[in-house]
Amino acid sequence: MMRKLVAEFIGTGWLVLGGCGSAVLAAAYPDLGIGFLGVALAFGLTVVTMAYAIGHISGCHLNPAVTVGLWAGGRFPTGDVIPYIASQVLGGIAGAGVLYIIASGNASFDLANGFASNGYGAHSPGHYSLLSSFVTEVVMTFMFLFVILGATHKLSSPQMAGLAIGLALTLIHLISIPVTNTSVNPARSTGPALFVGDWATSQLWMFWVAPLIGAVLAGLVYRWLCPDNEYRSVS
Amino acid sequence: MMRKLVAEFIGTGWLVLGGCGSAVLAAAYPDLGIGFLGVALAFGLTVVTMAYAIGHISGCHLNPAVTVGLWAGGRFPTGDVIPYIASQVLGGIAGAGVLYIIASGNASFDLANGFASNGYGAHSPGHYSLLSSFVTEVVMTFMFLFVILGATHKLSSPQMAGLAIGLALTLIHLISIPVTNTSVNPARSTGPALFVGDWATSQLWMFWVAPLIGAVLAGLVYRWLCPDNEYRSVS
Amino acid sequence: MMRKLVAEFIGTGWLVLGGCGSAVLAAAYPDLGIGFLGVALAFGLTVVTMAYAIGHISGCHLNPAVTVGLWAGGRFPTGDVIPYIASQVLGGIAGAGVLYIIASGNASFDLANGFASNGYGAHSPGHYSLLSSFVTEVVMTFMFLFVILGATHKLSSPQMAGLAIGLALTLIHLISIPVTNTSVNPARSTGPALFVGDWATSQLWMFWVAPLIGAVLAGLVYRWLCPDNEYRSVS
Amino acid sequence: MMRKLVAEFIGTGWLVLGGCGSAVLAAAYPDLGIGFLGVALAFGLTVVTMAYAIGHISGCHLNPAVTVGLWAGGRFPTGDVIPYIASQVLGGIAGAGVLYIIASGNASFDLANGFASNGYGAHSPGHYSLLSSFVTEVVMTFMFLFVILGATHKLSSPQMAGLAIGLALTLIHLISIPVTNTSVNPARSTGPALFVGDWATSQLWMFWVAPLIGAVLAGLVYRWLCPDNEYRSVS
Repeated sequence: MMRKLVAEFIGTGWLVLGGCGSAVLAAAYPDLGIGFLGVALAFGLTVVTMAYAIGHISGCHLNPAVTVGLWAGGRFPTGDVIPYIASQVLGGIAGAGVLYIIASGNASFDLANGFASNGYGAHSPGHYSLLSSFVTEVVMTFMFLFVILGATHKLSSPQMAGLAIGLALTLIHLISIPVTNTSVNPARSTGPALFVGDWATSQLWMFWVAPLIGAVLAGLVYRWLCPDNEYRSVS
Repeated sequence: MMRKLVAEFIGTGWLVLGGCGSAVLAAAYPDLGIGFLGVALAFGLTVVTMAYAIGHISGCHLNPAVTVGLWAGGRFPTGDVIPYIASQVLGGIAGAGVLYIIASGNASFDLANGFASNGYGAHSPGHYSLLSSFVTEVVMTFMFLFVILGATHKLSSPQMAGLAIGLALTLIHLISIPVTNTSVNPARSTGPALFVGDWATSQLWMFWVAPLIGAVLAGLVYRWLCPDNEYRSVS
Repeated sequence: MMRKLVAEFIGTGWLVLGGCGSAVLAAAYPDLGIGFLGVALAFGLTVVTMAYAIGHISGCHLNPAVTVGLWAGGRFPTGDVIPYIASQVLGGIAGAGVLYIIASGNASFDLANGFASNGYGAHSPGHYSLLSSFVTEVVMTFMFLFVILGATHKLSSPQMAGLAIGLALTLIHLISIPVTNTSVNPARSTGPALFVGDWATSQLWMFWVAPLIGAVLAGLVYRWLCPDNEYRSVS
Repeated sequence: MMRKLVAEFIGTGWLVLGGCGSAVLAAAYPDLGIGFLGVALAFGLTVVTMAYAIGHISGCHLNPAVTVGLWAGGRFPTGDVIPYIASQVLGGIAGAGVLYIIASGNASFDLANGFASNGYGAHSPGHYSLLSSFVTEVVMTFMFLFVILGATHKLSSPQMAGLAIGLALTLIHLISIPVTNTSVNPARSTGPALFVGDWATSQLWMFWVAPLIGAVLAGLVYRWLCPDNEYRSVS
């Protein structure tokens, strides 16, 4: 179990360092910056790379919503839910910490630019309403878990699950960065928010509630849609 | 059968929400927008992700032209064609509906910007003629089905079919967004058009006729080219 | 054999229509255009999609340099070289023809913009010298064939070959579009050049000579490097 | 052994020619340039393509940090470390040499623009401090090796390792090009630096020391995390 928790810690740290790092360090670089497309690719690739690196150790959840959704879908033991979530949140904070060390070595770095935190309303990148943002996070997390539950089903292609799941996260970012900066992952939201404080922590509740609702719904729906869902590794 | 139809409904909804959503929400975001390249990637990834999520349930068509092309290629039973198409069209409308809810939470949202509808002539993004647009949709759908029929052939690589087919849709968008905003999928065209009405519904006939012609031709050609085309799942 | 030649014809047509089409129609679209990155991806995806669609029919060469390189590497029968090349060249012309029909449905289309032809010196996109351009085409084709010969070797991963080879073509375009508009494929060069005429046909010799030199060298080097190179399908 | 060293030489040459070549030739092309996103993709694809081309010959390290990290992880024999590193450094220099020939065929080429060398402080693309740059290179190389060790573990998916590892390099570039121009590979740093001289060679020590520290740490950590790490080919 210790090894699984360390794997989730490192993996979630990588998700936050890689995804938020690309956003903070490279997205808006003058002329040559990677934009939202590059950030979307980066988030997805953190999952692709970890799926094949630690899928065989911990299952590579990297996300409390994934852990809860797999639990709701009948694929994850109840007793392991809390330890997994704790490791993920700590990993997300650690990833944000490493990013803070790197980013602050630049004279123009300023936490007030958001540090890739998630937000709604006035803090949505494109100023989308709370309702829009809430619907977005529920639906996107629902679809993320739907893909995860399907791609790891024993009748799907075992070797491709990690790629399909990571690319699902890329797709979700391609759609929804302008709305909420895209969470679908409470641990990813918590890491940067603790550094920014202020509005980022006061809006943080939404990026726990909405993803967990979407995840539970997906677990229940997929369980009905495809009942014989024997557990299988992500890689 | 009910499970198959629900899977097609959810999958086609995801195709429209993901593909059209990336176009409406993220393509033209100032400075950091994902552009046509990001939209092309998003459309393809809706298919990649669903192929591995529901390929083993419904075959993951998500598109009346795919269903008809597989039928013409001798790989899909006649009696299931209409139910599949109905589910896909309803899914496309539902996907557009969810997108409408999200997008309308932004003060500057306006259906008059097209809502990612397909069009020709004055409503082609690059103002291409009806003839150009018609040829484009026939040829692109022909090639899409050609890849689908080939990649799911029993002599090809089973695990890779979903990836190859999704990337074919990305490629088709890389070529033809400027011409027709790219359909090759009547269900994808119908969803947004019903919200926009006006020119979008009056041009909708073309995005049913041209894709279906291309699909039937592909079914017939591939059947001649590679006769031993035993049915196989997409994932 | 007839089926193999038809497959090569369709596949090479797709390579030219998809690759050159993305360049002509979508690369420079105002604000949202896909740029060289999108064109590089499009060329690669024509190969990825065809590898899984026709790899089991014809081997999916789509390129006289590939056919000659595989022959030099001891993997392709001498008697089939000329028929394959003829099909590829005809396919390339047909692909350019379909693109011409589509592109000319736009009022601002002008063949004088190059129609995605390859060129050196004054007709290199970035005005690179003949020497630079020649070295580029030899080296890039050498590496393309090196990857093809390696990825289809029986000790490599059979299902991944089509993906690796297509992505090699993407990589080659990421490097060398500014130099020669990237050929590494005489059939791809011939199609558009015949429509443009003028400088494009007078520079065409280079895009036959340099790729074929690179391909033969790769065949000989890989044969020495990894002698046990039993033939295997690309998909 | 000779064949392994030749494979590493060609492969590392390709990494430098492809990755640095895309940066020097195509990244900043007016309007249509590929930007950091294209360069990130190019670096990753050099590894993806070589993994399937020479993975079965030499293991496809292409990087002294990879060789040392695999050695630290107990997967590579001590006696082969120095010959591998020598081949990689020579390959990196050769790749930079070919790029020099190509690039110098353009009138505006100037080595003073950096020739894609790595740097910190005043020579960091985004002017990041030495500390930031050092942390970045240690952490990024640690994660690169962590993914390599995991994806080639016998319990992971054998065919997908090359793809996951190459995409890890893409991800690393998406994050860290603005910081150090991204090394994580002393051979990649050495090639261009020898052509530029001056600041590039005087800063070169950092791009040997930091990646090697990160690599050794990853070897030790992964060995503890997942002890049964039997050696397996990358492709």
